[in-house]
Amino acid sequence: MKKKDLDENPPQVLAGGSSNSVSIGGSQLLPSARGDVQTADQPLFKGRITREREPVNLEFPFASLDGVMTPNSQFFVRTHFPMPHVSRDDWRLKCRGHVERELVLNYDDLRELPSQTIAATIECAGNSRVFLVPKAEGVQWELGGVGTAEWTGVPLSTVLDRAGIKKGAVEVILQGADKGELTEEPKTPGEIHFARSLPLEKARQEEVILAYQMNGEDLAPEHGFPVRAIVPGWYGMASVKWLTRIEVTDRPFQGYWQTAEYAYWNRYSGEPVGVPVSEMQVKSAIARPMRGERIAPTTAYRVFGAAWSDGADIVKVEVSSDCGQTWKEAKLLGDAAPYMWRLWEFQWQPPRTSGKCTLMSRATDNQDRRQPREHNPDKKAYLINHTLPVEVEVR
Amino acid sequence: MKKKDLDENPPQVLAGGSSNSVSIGGSQLLPSARGDVQTADQPLFKGRITREREPVNLEFPFASLDGVMTPNSQFFVRTHFPMPHVSRDDWRLKCRGHVERELVLNYDDLRELPSQTIAATIECAGNSRVFLVPKAEGVQWELGGVGTAEWTGVPLSTVLDRAGIKKGAVEVILQGADKGELTEEPKTPGEIHFARSLPLEKARQEEVILAYQMNGEDLAPEHGFPVRAIVPGWYGMASVKWLTRIEVTDRPFQGYWQTAEYAYWNRYSGEPVGVPVSEMQVKSAIARPMRGERIAPTTAYRVFGAAWSDGADIVKVEVSSDCGQTWKEAKLLGDAAPYMWRLWEFQWQPPRTSGKCTLMSRATDNQDRRQPREHNPDKKAYLINHTLPVEVEVR
Repeated sequence: MKKKDLDENPPQVLAGGSSNSVSIGGSQLLPSARGDVQTADQPLFKGRITREREPVNLEFPFASLDGVMTPNSQFFVRTHFPMPHVSRDDWRLKCRGHVERELVLNYDDLRELPSQTIAATIECAGNSRVFLVPKAEGVQWELGGVGTAEWTGVPLSTVLDRAGIKKGAVEVILQGADKGELTEEPKTPGEIHFARSLPLEKARQEEVILAYQMNGEDLAPEHGFPVRAIVPGWYGMASVKWLTRIEVTDRPFQGYWQTAEYAYWNRYSGEPVGVPVSEMQVKSAIARPMRGERIAPTTAYRVFGAAWSDGADIVKVEVSSDCGQTWKEAKLLGDAAPYMWRLWEFQWQPPRTSGKCTLMSRATDNQDRRQPREHNPDKKAYLINHTLPVEVEVR
Repeated sequence: MKKKDLDENPPQVLAGGSSNSVSIGGSQLLPSARGDVQTADQPLFKGRITREREPVNLEFPFASLDGVMTPNSQFFVRTHFPMPHVSRDDWRLKCRGHVERELVLNYDDLRELPSQTIAATIECAGNSRVFLVPKAEGVQWELGGVGTAEWTGVPLSTVLDRAGIKKGAVEVILQGADKGELTEEPKTPGEIHFARSLPLEKARQEEVILAYQMNGEDLAPEHGFPVRAIVPGWYGMASVKWLTRIEVTDRPFQGYWQTAEYAYWNRYSGEPVGVPVSEMQVKSAIARPMRGERIAPTTAYRVFGAAWSDGADIVKVEVSSDCGQTWKEAKLLGDAAPYMWRLWEFQWQPPRTSGKCTLMSRATDNQDRRQPREHNPDKKAYLINHTLPVEVEVR
C-alpha cells in the first residue's frame, strides 16, 4: 500500500474565497468547510474533509465546531490500513502474555462487565501537520484531527484484573484487527497489525476503557466497531480501534507504531533518544474565523475555538491579532472537566483599515504549560501544538 | 551530508575479467582485488577498496586474506561522519551518568591503568550487503567489511569500577567524537554524535576494552585514534571509535544508532519489535576463488576462507559447488580461539567440463547455529550471514 495524499481531492478548507458561500456570524465560510453540504460517493465521506481515501483519513470540519461534543458522523477518522469489518458475533478479545490466565472474551462477555462513561477529547498525533514548514510526510491534517465524545465501555483494568497481571509486567500492548504492509519508508516488515502499548500504570487508570459506545450509539465501523480502546489524555494512536488483543509484557514494546511511526526525539544528556508519542500537549485552535475568511472592519467579531491538554485543566486562552506580538485573554466557556476540551471565545475588534490580519490563540494549562511559538523539530511531524496562524482578510 | 555510493569508483572486485591480472594459485585475480596494487589519491585509500569517499568507507580486499591477522593498513574502515581529528593531548574520556563519581581521564591516565591484549574479529553489521536482492540502501560492502586484529587497551570494567556504577544502571552508552547531520531518511534530529550502548552485563565482560593499540601499533586516525572501544563478539558498530564519553544509564538507550540505524525486527508473539543490532551471527566467507575468477578444469583448487561467530567456536565449515544442493566438509586451520575467526580450506576438484559454477560455504558454531540459506528480511540490511554464492568460470 502506498501512503499518498489524495491529490485529486485537496483539502478544500485551505482554498481561497468562493461565491457559493454561506454567511455565519458576519463572515464567509466555504461550503465544504462546514462539512454539512459536502458530497462524496460514500456516506462515510459526507460531513468530513477527505484527507486520504485509501486508507481512509477524514477530518472533522473544525469551522463547524458549535458545542463540546463532536457528532459521530463528523468525528475525525484515522486509519492506517484497509478498514477491517468485524462482526459482533465473531469478535473475540484475547488477553494474554505476562498474565496468570489467558482470557478470551466475546462481545456479550464484555457487555456484562460493569461499564462507565467518560467524555474525552481525542487528538490525532499529527493534527495540524499541514502547518509544518518544510512540508512533512504524512496525512495533511489541518485543525480537525481532533474531537470530543462521550465514550462508554469497560475499564481496561477490569479485564487486566481478571487475567491477573504477573509480577514484572511493565506494559500492555493493545492490538487492532487492522493490518497491512507499508512498502514505502519506513517500511513494515511484511504485514503487521496496528498495535500500541501503554505503561502498566496508565493502563490501570480508571479512565482507560474498552469502549463500545460513542455518544450513546454503538461504535460506527470507522470508529472501531465493535470495541476500541479509549485512552484519555493521550494522542489518538493509543486509542486502538477494532481491538482484538491485549498483551501484557515484561519489557517496553518496540513495535513499528512505537518506534518507526508515532515516535519522536527526546534529549537525554543533550543527545536525542527515540520515544513513543504519548500524552497530548497543551493546545488551542481557532474554529472561527477560518483561514482566508473575509471579515467586516466595522463590527466586533466573536473569535471562537477550543483548547485542551493531557487531562490537565485549561486555565487560560489568549488571542493575538498581531502575529503574536501582544496577547489578550479570551473567555473560557462552560466548566472545566478532565480529559475534555474547553471551548472559548474572544470578542475581537478588527482594525478599521482593510488588509490581511493574522490571528493566533494560545492556551495555558494548570501545570503552567503554555503553547510554544515554534514547532520543535525533535517532535518530527507529531505533537504539533505551536501557536497556529489564521490569516484573515479585513475588508 | 548525503549518504550516497561513490558511483565514480564502483567496487572493482565485482567486475569481470581483465587482461591486467595476476596469477595466484592457478587462478586469475583482478589487481584491485588484492588491494596491494590499487592506487588512489590518499594513502588512506591505498590497499583497500573504496566503497564511499565521504564519509570514508573502505573495505578489506578479502581475496588477499592470507593469515589470521588483518594488516592495519588493509583493515576495513567504517565512518558515519567526517573523520574527527583528535590529538592525544586534547583527548579526554568522560565517564558520567548513573555513577557514584564522574571521571575525566586524559590519555596518560588511561595508559597508566592495567591493560590487556585480545585478538578479535570485527565485522561491520552491513557486511555483504551487496548480495541483498532487492538492492538495499547503505554502503555496498561485499566480503571485506570484516577483519581480525590484536587490540590492546584497558578493560571498560576498570573505568566503570572507578566511577562506581549506581544501583539501577542497565546500560553503558559509548559516544565518539564523530558527529554530523544526516539529511536523508532516516534523518537525524540536527547534528548528533555517533553513539551506541551495551547492556551493563556485556560492558563489564573482561573482553570489552578501551583500545589504544591495534596489532602493536598506536591506532591510526581512521581506526579511532587515540582510543576506541573494542566489543568482541558484537558487530563493529559497538566498537565505537574516537571514544570520548561513557554514559551509564538507568534505561535502555533509544538513540539514533540503536533505533533508526543498526536496528532490525525481532518477533514477539508473532509481531515485529525493533531491536538494536548486537552479536555477530555465524558466518563464513570464501576469499579465494573470487567471484568471476577463471579456474582450470584439470587441477584441484584450494578454496580458502574464514569463518566466525559471536565468540562461539566454529566447529564445521562446509563447501558446496552445486548451489547448495550437496555439501562437503572443509578443513579448519590452526586452533580455535574465542572472538577470532577461523581460517579454513577445501580441496575442490572442479568439473571437467567448461562452464559456470557456483561455490558456497557455510559454517556451524559450537552452539549448533548454522548459516541460513536465505537472508531474513526482518534483519533489514544487517546481519547478512546467509550462504553467499561465488560464481566462477571453469575453463
